[in-house]
Amino acid sequence: VNNRPEMSREDRFVERLKAMLPADERVAVGPGDDAAVVRAVAGECVVTTDMLVEGVDFLPDEDPERLGRRALAVNLSDLAAMGAEPDFFLLTIGFAPEKGEEFPLRIARGALARAREFGATLVGGDLSSAPETIVSIALWGRPAFSPILRSGGRAGDRLWLSGWPGRAAAGLRLARRGQPEPRPEDPQRELLDAYFDPEPRVGLGLELARRGLARAAIDLSDGLGVDAGRLARACGLRAVIEKERLPVSPALRMFCESERRDPAEDLLSGGDDYELLFAAPEEAEPVIRDLSTPRVPITCVGTLEEGEGAFLRQAGADLEISGRGYDHLERPG
Amino acid sequence: VNNRPEMSREDRFVERLKAMLPADERVAVGPGDDAAVVRAVAGECVVTTDMLVEGVDFLPDEDPERLGRRALAVNLSDLAAMGAEPDFFLLTIGFAPEKGEEFPLRIARGALARAREFGATLVGGDLSSAPETIVSIALWGRPAFSPILRSGGRAGDRLWLSGWPGRAAAGLRLARRGQPEPRPEDPQRELLDAYFDPEPRVGLGLELARRGLARAAIDLSDGLGVDAGRLARACGLRAVIEKERLPVSPALRMFCESERRDPAEDLLSGGDDYELLFAAPEEAEPVIRDLSTPRVPITCVGTLEEGEGAFLRQAGADLEISGRGYDHLERPG
Repeated sequence: VNNRPEMSREDRFVERLKAMLPADERVAVGPGDDAAVVRAVAGECVVTTDMLVEGVDFLPDEDPERLGRRALAVNLSDLAAMGAEPDFFLLTIGFAPEKGEEFPLRIARGALARAREFGATLVGGDLSSAPETIVSIALWGRPAFSPILRSGGRAGDRLWLSGWPGRAAAGLRLARRGQPEPRPEDPQRELLDAYFDPEPRVGLGLELARRGLARAAIDLSDGLGVDAGRLARACGLRAVIEKERLPVSPALRMFCESERRDPAEDLLSGGDDYELLFAAPEEAEPVIRDLSTPRVPITCVGTLEEGEGAFLRQAGADLEISGRGYDHLERPG
Repeated sequence: VNNRPEMSREDRFVERLKAMLPADERVAVGPGDDAAVVRAVAGECVVTTDMLVEGVDFLPDEDPERLGRRALAVNLSDLAAMGAEPDFFLLTIGFAPEKGEEFPLRIARGALARAREFGATLVGGDLSSAPETIVSIALWGRPAFSPILRSGGRAGDRLWLSGWPGRAAAGLRLARRGQPEPRPEDPQRELLDAYFDPEPRVGLGLELARRGLARAAIDLSDGLGVDAGRLARACGLRAVIEKERLPVSPALRMFCESERRDPAEDLLSGGDDYELLFAAPEEAEPVIRDLSTPRVPITCVGTLEEGEGAFLRQAGADLEISGRGYDHLERPG
């Protein structure tokens, strides 16, 4: 009776995962026990979770590493919107076992690569068989200062938008066409990258929190229309976005021209941008303008006013937009 | 332009969920913002996550409240095995939107009912459309004393088992037959309850940790065979279980007799029991025996020895059992 017992596939996964993890003295017990043990500091702790489901939140047969990166980025973006510094995460993967043992490791590798850039450490997770691929992450960290809530905006505050929203929605349309990958210098590359590999604005969120610049913030996961509506509702105010101020990237403009489509549609109704929309007092304007860069512009797009809802203002007319965006409880076409 | 903007179905879910939550002063920001904010105390924090997928980890068309209860119990069981006190959890639900808006609320109601019994507070989560129902929970809390790891057992330690493992596997077989629900006094009721509504041994885990009784522990989620193998591997030892000491509940014995099946099979290879297997020094025996009750017996089933693997000893022969159990990466038949 001395044959070496075989490990289950789940246990083999954990062993191989552990070999990929850097040492972290804040982690007393990492993956492989019934639960992880981390050393917490006293104070406020910011926690979020987001799950991505194949065919709903990402395209079927997505590259597993890119999927892992994206799943982590989506969660990092929530912490960015709170002005919090990421610390630890749990990674749960559901997948069809016939995809093989490398498949979940490749998802983990992608998540770990994204995590490393932002100082987040993997401490545990779960693995399950599932008919389609599922990636669920729980991520937590500490606020840089006071957490930035959705509800802190006041009437008269300016509304600011980071980056070039709308690109991800265009990138998703492009990806669905299933054409060959564009070359790196092709402007369509930028749209695809915005969808497949969004950059969470953790640095910007921390800066806004540390310097007390933003009174309220939300990350754009479901479209500027619905997310501006959420911010406005949390503040008990009306968000007014001026159409002519919307930042439209040259790549998005060019692509939408070829489609004879108004690029504002992609900003308002497209999801998956993971840019920040935040409210700041008028006097913060010069400091915020200093945070703007050509690659990640920070654009004043409107104001918070008395009232309710979210509106797009164009040529003096206001159009209600808070119903415009992605509803997670609808399947995409 | 004064029509009241409609909330998305996800936002309506969050509003209705918030109305179900009791006040908790440890929670600065609950569901509905980009992330939750909780007040953490300094020290060690124990974190776990477990995902249940329809058709893999539970039967299709499971009652949503019972599913929510079970999903929380499975996670609580991990904290029980660490000797930790539950504090907060995140609840993520994937479901087919045609199941209606009540469906995820009923899952949440079940989870909240289970959570209330153990002092765990819901602070956030995520909702997604999915082809089948998915419940993913992340749960964390504080160790009562030092967390009980899988790895702390020493050669000569006794192995103890809580409750009546094997009942859940028999309950699952019964449930798959799809017969009418047995009456409350029917012994089969006990087997079904063990499967559908497991009781996490949080109180026992805390007691073992506080009084320093257990050197190592694991919860039985995948079967005594594979889980004893995991405990043994973490300790760098061999687990030897004596077959004649295995606690077989009268209900399980009766059911297995009707099936002409050895009930030990259900203990070794069946999963879903969520009982604790722990290692304790010989001198702790009298104190541990005092923790045993008729409803939740605590039974000495074997010892840790030098060597590796997990073995069932019967009539002097040792049978390797560490490969016996549920592998999450297999679909059930």
